[in-house]
Amino acid sequence: MLSKDSTLSALDRFATNLRRVRLESGLSQEKLAELAGVHRTYVSQAERRVVSISLDSIEKLAASLGVTEEELVGMSTPE
Amino acid sequence: MLSKDSTLSALDRFATNLRRVRLESGLSQEKLAELAGVHRTYVSQAERRVVSISLDSIEKLAASLGVTEEELVGMSTPE
Repeated sequence: MLSKDSTLSALDRFATNLRRVRLESGLSQEKLAELAGVHRTYVSQAERRVVSISLDSIEKLAASLGVTEEELVGMSTPE
Repeated sequence: MLSKDSTLSALDRFATNLRRVRLESGLSQEKLAELAGVHRTYVSQAERRVVSISLDSIEKLAASLGVTEEELVGMSTPE
């Protein structure tokens, strides 16, 4: 059961969730970017927390990973 | 129990959730914008789905409304 770490910013939680779900899916950053229709460096930048995340991108990435937006935005376990 | 309507876009769900939680809190669009530290027309634009929503804004609005980001991004009941 994932615990929500409220001390983490939403961006930190998103980056952590995105990376974990992507690795669990066996996808490279570039492959996920291609599937989601975002710029090929966007996933790398998102995981490094160096880009602003839009709800639209969250929706595309979640759909490509087969998870809900809540799962990417919400609960996460710090690495 | 709210049901997730997956036919709605993330933006539609966010707009619907934002409006309902804001009204339940008894806040005007301008007052919520002030509390969240976003432009005073941003809440109105978000509820009318005419502005791009960033994770940063979702975080600010959720904090000001005392709900989680998941509650604004996820479950919603169409109006």
